[in-house]
Amino acid sequence: MEKNFNIMFYSGNGNHPLGARIIQHAKEYLGPHINFSHIDFDEFPDEESDARIPLGAEIKGKTIVFYQSIFNQSLFEEALELIWAIKKQYGAAYLIAIIPFLIFRRQDHEEKMEEICRLKMAIDRLKHAGVDELITVSPHSPQIGKLCADLKVILREVDPAPLFAATIKTYLPDNPLIYSPDRGSIPRALKLAALIGSQVIFSLKHRGFNNEVNIQTEEKTEISKIIAAHESEQSPKIHYADAEHVHGRSIVIVEDEVSTGTTANKTGRRLRALGAKKIIFLAVHPVLVRDWRRKLLDENPFDKIILGDTIPRNYGKMTGGKIHDISVAELVAQTLYQSLQPFL
Amino acid sequence: MEKNFNIMFYSGNGNHPLGARIIQHAKEYLGPHINFSHIDFDEFPDEESDARIPLGAEIKGKTIVFYQSIFNQSLFEEALELIWAIKKQYGAAYLIAIIPFLIFRRQDHEEKMEEICRLKMAIDRLKHAGVDELITVSPHSPQIGKLCADLKVILREVDPAPLFAATIKTYLPDNPLIYSPDRGSIPRALKLAALIGSQVIFSLKHRGFNNEVNIQTEEKTEISKIIAAHESEQSPKIHYADAEHVHGRSIVIVEDEVSTGTTANKTGRRLRALGAKKIIFLAVHPVLVRDWRRKLLDENPFDKIILGDTIPRNYGKMTGGKIHDISVAELVAQTLYQSLQPFL
Repeated sequence: MEKNFNIMFYSGNGNHPLGARIIQHAKEYLGPHINFSHIDFDEFPDEESDARIPLGAEIKGKTIVFYQSIFNQSLFEEALELIWAIKKQYGAAYLIAIIPFLIFRRQDHEEKMEEICRLKMAIDRLKHAGVDELITVSPHSPQIGKLCADLKVILREVDPAPLFAATIKTYLPDNPLIYSPDRGSIPRALKLAALIGSQVIFSLKHRGFNNEVNIQTEEKTEISKIIAAHESEQSPKIHYADAEHVHGRSIVIVEDEVSTGTTANKTGRRLRALGAKKIIFLAVHPVLVRDWRRKLLDENPFDKIILGDTIPRNYGKMTGGKIHDISVAELVAQTLYQSLQPFL
Repeated sequence: MEKNFNIMFYSGNGNHPLGARIIQHAKEYLGPHINFSHIDFDEFPDEESDARIPLGAEIKGKTIVFYQSIFNQSLFEEALELIWAIKKQYGAAYLIAIIPFLIFRRQDHEEKMEEICRLKMAIDRLKHAGVDELITVSPHSPQIGKLCADLKVILREVDPAPLFAATIKTYLPDNPLIYSPDRGSIPRALKLAALIGSQVIFSLKHRGFNNEVNIQTEEKTEISKIIAAHESEQSPKIHYADAEHVHGRSIVIVEDEVSTGTTANKTGRRLRALGAKKIIFLAVHPVLVRDWRRKLLDENPFDKIILGDTIPRNYGKMTGGKIHDISVAELVAQTLYQSLQPFL
C-alpha cells in the first residue's frame, strides 16, 4: 500500500500556526503512520457552515486525531460538528481530540445552581460528539480530571514546564525564584522550580478591603501550614513572598493564562516594591482580551513576557519583540505519540 | 400555592417578538398552569457566555418549555447550552423545545459522504442536550420526521396553512390558484388550496440548460403521472402551470422559505409571461440573506409579499408596508397546548 490510513489527522480553524508545528513534530515521531487530511470549509449565504470532509469514506474503522484550539464559542461549535461527523457519520473507531486550550474553564462547580457548570457541559458534549481521548495543555481548572473520569474521557494533560525551564535559564541565569500567586498554583511552581534547580515564593490572593486585618492574622498561621505541607527532601524550598526573600532576586511569575494583564501588572509592581531585581512574566495561554496591549505591554513592570502559542496572536497583535513566544507543539506531539503507540 | 411551577417556560435570544406573542397566546390556552421564567444573559470579557438561570433550583422534576428560533449557529450553541443545563444540571423531568425555525435544513442525506448530514447531527445533539419533544413550523426537509423517530424525539410540525388561507382571501377574493414550484411542495399546496376552496398549479424544477429538450419530453409523462397521483374526490384539482391555466388568473406562490428572492422573482416573471393577473408571494420563513431587499423588493413582480415571523426582521429590515407580516404564534401556542394537555 502506498498510503497508510491507519491514523488520520484533521484540523479545525482554531489555531493553524500551532497546528502546523504539531504536524511537523508529529511527523518526526510518527513517520509514515500518520496522514494529514483535509477539510473544505465554506458557508452558505445564510452563514450556515458547509464544511466537507473529502476523504470521509476512508475514515471508517480508523483512529482519528482531531486538532482544534477552542478559544471562542464558534470554534467549539465547529469542533463538535466535525467530531460528530468523523465519529458518528463516517464511523471512526477511536477519536483523539487535541484541544490545547478549552475556553470553558469557568463555573466548574456543579453545586452553584445559578451558574451553568460549563466545563462539565463542554466535556459531556465533546464525549457525545465522539471524543474518546482528550489532549490539553495546562488546564485552568483542576476539576477537569474528575469530570473526564466521570464521563469516561481519557485525559492527557501536557505540562509545558520543561520547555519554560530552558527559556527562563537563558534570560535569568542567576538562579531565579519561581513565584506562585495563590495556593492552588504552588504545585505547578514547585515543578518548574525543580527543573531549574531553584526555589518557590508565594502569595495568597487578597479577599477584599474591609476585613484586611483579619486576613493578615489568618495568613500567618495559613502561611506556616502551607509551607509545612510542601516541605519534603525531594521538593524545592518554599517561602512567603516578603521583602526578606524577594529583595535583590530575579523572579519568574508563572500563570496558566493572561487576559488583560491587570492582575499580572499589580503583582509585578508589588514584587518591585519588595526589591525584586528582574521579573519575567510567563503565561501558557495568551487569552488577551480587548485592551490587553495597552495594559499588559504599556504599563508592565516586567523585563520579559513569555507567552505560549495555544491561542494565536494575529499580525495586528504582534509586538516587535517585547514578547518571547514559546511553542507547546513538540510537547503536544510527544503526548500524541504516547497516546498513539498502542495503535502503531 | 400562589405560584404553580408545574410547567416553566424559558426563552433564548433567537426571536423575542415571536416569543412574546407565543407567551401571550399560551396564557389564553394554559392560564395558571404555565410560568414564564427568566435567564440572565451576559458574557465574560473573552466572549465566553455567562448565562444564568435564576430559578434553576425550581426546575427539578418539572416539565420545561424552551423556546428558541435557530437561524444562525450561535443561537444553536446557546440553545444547546441552556437545554443541557435545564435538563442535565437542574434536573427537568421533560423538555419540550419550540424551535420555529431550525437552520440545519440542508445536507439531510446520510449517504452523501463528503457532506455532513447536518440535520441528523442537529437533532442528535438536541436530543443529547435533553430535548424530548420538538415543536417546529413548516420544516424544509421531509427527512426530519424519520430522523426524529430514529433518535426518539417526538416531533410536532406546525402547519401555518389555516392562517395563510384567511390572509390570502382578503387580498385575492377571486378564487386564486395555489402554485407549487416543484413536486415535493404539491401536498402543501393542496392543503392550502383545500382550505381556500381553490385549485393547484405546479411546475417542475429545471435541471440545467444543455439537456432541456430531453427534460421537456420526460416532463409530459412526468406531468400526467403527477396529476394522476394526486387525483381523488377529496383533493382539489391540480394542473400543470401553462398559459391555458394561468392566463387571467390570480396566483399564490407558496414557499417554505425565501433567502434572496432570486428564484421567487424568476417564477413570478414566468407566471406574468403566461398571463397571470395578480400574484402573491408567500413564505413561512423569511431567511432574507444579504441583498434580499434589493432583489426581492426592488425587482419583484408581485402584488403582495406575505412573510411569516419565525425569523425576526429588525428595524433596519422593515419595509414600510410592502410586506404583509403574519404571525405563527397562535398556531404554535395551540400545538404547545396539545402537547402539554397530558401534564395539566
